[in-house]
Amino acid sequence: MKALRFDPDSGLKLVQQPEPYREDEALVRVTLAGICSTDLHITRGYASFAGILGHEFVGVVERSPVKSQIGQRVVGEINAGCGRCDLCGEGDSRHCVNRTVLGIHNRDGAFAEFLTLPAQNLLQVPDNVPDEVAVFCEPLAAACQILEQESINAGHCVAVIGDGKLGQLVARVLATVNPNVVLFGKHADKLKHASSSGITTALASNADLQLRSFDYVIECSGSPLALATALKLVRPKGTIILKSTFHDEVMLETWPIVVDEITVRGSRCGRFAPALELLSKRTIKPQDLISEVCDLGDGVRAMERAEQAGVLKVLLKAG
Amino acid sequence: MKALRFDPDSGLKLVQQPEPYREDEALVRVTLAGICSTDLHITRGYASFAGILGHEFVGVVERSPVKSQIGQRVVGEINAGCGRCDLCGEGDSRHCVNRTVLGIHNRDGAFAEFLTLPAQNLLQVPDNVPDEVAVFCEPLAAACQILEQESINAGHCVAVIGDGKLGQLVARVLATVNPNVVLFGKHADKLKHASSSGITTALASNADLQLRSFDYVIECSGSPLALATALKLVRPKGTIILKSTFHDEVMLETWPIVVDEITVRGSRCGRFAPALELLSKRTIKPQDLISEVCDLGDGVRAMERAEQAGVLKVLLKAG
Repeated sequence: MKALRFDPDSGLKLVQQPEPYREDEALVRVTLAGICSTDLHITRGYASFAGILGHEFVGVVERSPVKSQIGQRVVGEINAGCGRCDLCGEGDSRHCVNRTVLGIHNRDGAFAEFLTLPAQNLLQVPDNVPDEVAVFCEPLAAACQILEQESINAGHCVAVIGDGKLGQLVARVLATVNPNVVLFGKHADKLKHASSSGITTALASNADLQLRSFDYVIECSGSPLALATALKLVRPKGTIILKSTFHDEVMLETWPIVVDEITVRGSRCGRFAPALELLSKRTIKPQDLISEVCDLGDGVRAMERAEQAGVLKVLLKAG
Repeated sequence: MKALRFDPDSGLKLVQQPEPYREDEALVRVTLAGICSTDLHITRGYASFAGILGHEFVGVVERSPVKSQIGQRVVGEINAGCGRCDLCGEGDSRHCVNRTVLGIHNRDGAFAEFLTLPAQNLLQVPDNVPDEVAVFCEPLAAACQILEQESINAGHCVAVIGDGKLGQLVARVLATVNPNVVLFGKHADKLKHASSSGITTALASNADLQLRSFDYVIECSGSPLALATALKLVRPKGTIILKSTFHDEVMLETWPIVVDEITVRGSRCGRFAPALELLSKRTIKPQDLISEVCDLGDGVRAMERAEQAGVLKVLLKAG
């Protein structure tokens, strides 16, 4: 099969390799996959990953230990726990220390014609959700995770930093519970997508006009400089949610966190069910975020495209 | 009166200056004051403060708009709010943006024969609490603040990083609710104080033996390197409490906060009443932490002494 592999020594390459096979897991024929900023960060050294990239996908089950899954159109949670530790026992394989993570840690990913995942990671996609919408399920679940961690409501002042792929989804998810979300970004063209969805937007260069104003600030920009901006925007005793993963170190004065008793909370993957529901009910309509659909065979160029200014989601079509 | 002043241009100096006078505030004759690491950090540039240092004290009220206070032996909360903003209205002058802070921000401090504070900042010291115990009320209140922010109980695994003045008090306060607190430090002689109080201790160099083990890690070391150690010790979805304030920037990889969904929460000043109660009931006995009692007139040397290896609390006697 065709696959887009990254290796720290040889870089990013389209390769031909055998289809994966694991008797204990489901085999999924990938139909559509999404390029995430994490994939781009991995090619710059984040997560020290070598293997097939990609963790956002929709596909069709070709083989599975759970026979009823065969033929289903599915999306899949990306963390596969060891099944034996306390966290897995509590149903939280997302934090299992020995987990593998699709296309990120010790498990080949979705930028390929086929992938395998444990059967219990897969969720059937409702018929009314087309592939180009379902492929947003993973990042949308990550956005929904914020609402599982924090009781944000309409009375709060909420800011999102970052007008990229993740920030756009986070702002839309938070707008379902709070009508006054402000999305801060650096790119007028990207901010337009948010304002078209009814979200208030502001240029990050104007952050100084709203110092100490927000109960919650969600950092989605992927920039090591954004945490300092978040600390400017958040009010005393407010909360900053960190969503971005990147390799670079952050230079930070921590005394404002102490003096203002700020909470900084990390937030990663979320459950897929709430995200699928938002897509199925068309509460979130992400299609306008698609900048280009490329063939998997054109994957190296697609990754370059995803890095370019003004580009949001680039999808890879495996079929 | 004698006072120990710091100015970024002229440094730390013992000076003679008039007694302070504010008709709207109480005048306190300071009997004993404590040197805190924050005072040492201020002399290295933290908080950009110029004025009389010192925010830990016990004294006697000489004059007050509240007549019943006159003659009382008191300790005093260090934040004085504007009295007009929303936070002050909610009773939280500790976070008032326009607050002054005794010996830290726009208000002369306690390393002097006299100081003034709003009458409502003062709390009478019970007769059974001697001055050399009462002077620990401010840092002990800061330690108690952790328990106001987090519901830590006997079932949690709790680590404290830093065997200095604050870490010692924090470990003792947490030990009142959790019998298994571990205090990590670099100094065998300082760790002995904690083990004499029945607290489990460990050398910080052995932190790697307890990776991802603690539900709560309290960072009290004052070192920019300690947050990275805290991130090693805390378990996935655990909480790091930051207590140290210092001027230096921290170099930090933030991705583990995101991936492990860690909460990092700042914690500063606390209410004095719970701290006074712990001292009055002798639940916390801090006297063994006193390394030396110096005359205020010897204040410059006392500050140098407080910086030396192996030294814990240095007190200044104003009388």
